[in-house]
Amino acid sequence: MEPINYSHTVLRAFVRDIFLQMGCPPADADLAADVLVSADLRGVDSHGVARLSGYVRLMDLNRLNPKPSIQVVHETPGTAVVDGDAGLGLVVAPFAMRVAIEKARQVGTGWVTIRNSNHFGIAGYHAMVALPEGMIGFAMTNAGPLVAPTFSKDKLLGTNPIAVAIPAGEEPPFVLDMATTTAAYGKLEILQRKNQPTPTGWVQDAAGRPDTDAHAVRKGGALLPLGGDREHGSHKGYGLGAWVDIFSGVLAGANYGPWVPPFATAGFMDSAQQLVGSGTGHFVGAMRVDAFRPADEFAAHMDNWIRTFRKAEPVPGQTAVLVPGDPERLLEAHRRAEGIPLLPAVADGLRQLGERFGVAWPDQS
Amino acid sequence: MEPINYSHTVLRAFVRDIFLQMGCPPADADLAADVLVSADLRGVDSHGVARLSGYVRLMDLNRLNPKPSIQVVHETPGTAVVDGDAGLGLVVAPFAMRVAIEKARQVGTGWVTIRNSNHFGIAGYHAMVALPEGMIGFAMTNAGPLVAPTFSKDKLLGTNPIAVAIPAGEEPPFVLDMATTTAAYGKLEILQRKNQPTPTGWVQDAAGRPDTDAHAVRKGGALLPLGGDREHGSHKGYGLGAWVDIFSGVLAGANYGPWVPPFATAGFMDSAQQLVGSGTGHFVGAMRVDAFRPADEFAAHMDNWIRTFRKAEPVPGQTAVLVPGDPERLLEAHRRAEGIPLLPAVADGLRQLGERFGVAWPDQS
Repeated sequence: MEPINYSHTVLRAFVRDIFLQMGCPPADADLAADVLVSADLRGVDSHGVARLSGYVRLMDLNRLNPKPSIQVVHETPGTAVVDGDAGLGLVVAPFAMRVAIEKARQVGTGWVTIRNSNHFGIAGYHAMVALPEGMIGFAMTNAGPLVAPTFSKDKLLGTNPIAVAIPAGEEPPFVLDMATTTAAYGKLEILQRKNQPTPTGWVQDAAGRPDTDAHAVRKGGALLPLGGDREHGSHKGYGLGAWVDIFSGVLAGANYGPWVPPFATAGFMDSAQQLVGSGTGHFVGAMRVDAFRPADEFAAHMDNWIRTFRKAEPVPGQTAVLVPGDPERLLEAHRRAEGIPLLPAVADGLRQLGERFGVAWPDQS
Repeated sequence: MEPINYSHTVLRAFVRDIFLQMGCPPADADLAADVLVSADLRGVDSHGVARLSGYVRLMDLNRLNPKPSIQVVHETPGTAVVDGDAGLGLVVAPFAMRVAIEKARQVGTGWVTIRNSNHFGIAGYHAMVALPEGMIGFAMTNAGPLVAPTFSKDKLLGTNPIAVAIPAGEEPPFVLDMATTTAAYGKLEILQRKNQPTPTGWVQDAAGRPDTDAHAVRKGGALLPLGGDREHGSHKGYGLGAWVDIFSGVLAGANYGPWVPPFATAGFMDSAQQLVGSGTGHFVGAMRVDAFRPADEFAAHMDNWIRTFRKAEPVPGQTAVLVPGDPERLLEAHRRAEGIPLLPAVADGLRQLGERFGVAWPDQS
C-alpha cells in the first residue's frame, strides 16, 4: 500500500489526454491538466489527479460542457462578470483571471465574479497567475455544502478557500491558499485511509455534537469552520467562509450556501433540487502593485518582510518559522525532481479511467 | 465594581470635547467621537471610550497630529494612496473610505492604502461607511506586534482585523469584523480583571509554549493566530494576519511586522527604533454591487442568503444560528436604549482625562 512516484510530466500528459477524450479543445485540456497536476506538485493531493474521476462524473451527470463558450456578460472599467457556460472551472477561472489582469492594467485593479462554472482545482494556482504580471492575485470559490456554521447542525457552506498571491523581489512570492475550515476535506480522507480519529475541532456528528470520527461527514456530520468552536473563534472561520460564498455565489449569480452543487462528494450527496443561480461560483482579482507604490520599493520591502518572518526565533521543538507559500514551494521542487507519490488505489482508479477513454496509463516512471 | 450605564449621546459629547481640547477641528472631533462610541455600542469595548487615554498618550508622545493635512499622494482610476499626516486613524480612515467610494463610483471598485496614520478604532465602522452608498465596504489595519506567527517565539504581527460589510435588501447588512487572532486583546483584559485563565489556543508564554495565563502577553508571551496551533489551523490565522499586514503596511509605505508602533500596549512596549515606513497602515475599499449584478437582484438574493442561514437548525444547547453582524447590531439596539456600561475604573479614568482637559465628566445618566 506504499505510494509509487510518477513524473509530473507523464501525469500531465495522461490527464491532458483524458480531457481531450472528454471533448475538451487541446488548449483547454493542456491548461486543465496543468492546474490539476499543480495541486499534486504543491501537496494538495485532494485537488489533484486523484480528482480526475470527479470531472468525468460531472460529465456523466450532464453538468459539464467540454466545449464551453466562456463569456464576459457584464463589465465596468474595473469589474466583470464571466459566464462559464458549464465549463471546467480549471479553464473558466484562468479566463477570468486574464480579464481581471487586463482591467488592472487599465485602472489599477480588476475584479471578476464567475457563475455557471464547476470545481476549479486549487485556488492558489489562479491567484498565482497574476505574479508574472507584477500583480497581486486573488481567488476564491464556493463549493458544495460540507461545513456547518457556528451553532448550526445543518451544512450550509463549502470549504470555500481564499488565495492571495503577492510578488516579492529576490525572495519567492507570498502565497496564502487556505480553506476556511479547520481542515480541508482531503485531510479527513488521509485519516480515513489510516483509520485514525481527527483532532478536536475538525468535525461534528449528525446531531451537531463535537466529534473526532474521520468519517463524520459521510455519517451526516459536518466539517467545522476554522476555529472549531465558538470559544476558539469558529465564528471567524464561519464569517470568512460566508464572505467567500457571498462573493462567489450571490455577487456572481451562481448558486450559494446549500444550493452549491457538490463535487468531491457527488457520489453520496444529492445536488439541491431548486437552484438559486447558475452552477458553482468563483471570485478572482488582480491588483497592480505600482497602482499603490513604485514596484521596486514594494519588492524591496516585501523581501524585508519575508526575511524578517523567516528569521524569527522558533518555539521549542520547531526548527523554523515559515512564510505562507514556503511549504508548497519546497514540496513542488521536491516532487518535480522525485515524482508525485500516488497511492495504489489512486493509480488504479486512473488506470481504469484510462481504459474507459482509451488512454494508456503510464507504468511507474 | 458593577458597571454603570452611560448614554451614548452623553459619552459622544464628552469624547468630542476631549478631542476638541486636544486641538482637533470640530468636524474631526465629531467623527472621531462617533467612531469610538460606535465600538462601545457594538460591544467592542476594548476599542471604545476606554481607549481615549491611548489617543491622549499618542499626543503626549508627539506621535499624533491633531490638525493633519490628510492627502492623496498617488492614484490611478481605481486606487489611491493616502498619507494621514500622523492624524487620528479615526479620521484618516473615513477620509480614505470616501476616496474609495468615489473611485468605485467611477470604475466599479476603489481601493486605498493609508500610511502615516494611527489606531483607527473598529474596522467594522469604516467598512460600513460604504453601505448607505449601496456598496460593499472593506477595512483592514495592522497594529503593534502582540501576535506570534505559527512556530514563532517572537511577536511579529498585530491582531490585524479584517472587516467586510455587505448590503442586503430588507434584511440588515452582513458585517464581518474580526481580529485574525483566536481572541482579541480586549478579551484577555476581561479575563485579567476577573482573574480567570484563558481557553487553550489563545496565548503562548515567553518561551513559546502553549499557555492559559491571561497576563501572558505582559509577561513576554504572545497572542496566537486564529486556530491556536498548527493542528487546528493556526497557519491560516497567521496567513490572514500576514496578508493584512502586507496590504496595510508594505503596500502602503507604512510600518509592518515588528515595526508597527504599539497603541494599546504603548505603556509597556517600546516602539521599534528603526522604522521601515510611516506610522500605522490601513487598507480600505469599496465595491459597487451593480458593477457585478443588478442591485435589486443582489439584494433579493442577499435576503435569501441571510434568511437561509438564520433558519438553520441549531446544535443542542443553542437557540439560533447567527449571521455575521447580528450580535453587534442587537447589542447596539440595546445599548442605544439602555446605555453603555462602563466599569468604575474606566469611568474614573475618563473623569481624570476630563479634569486634565477641563471637560466635565457626566454624572450617571
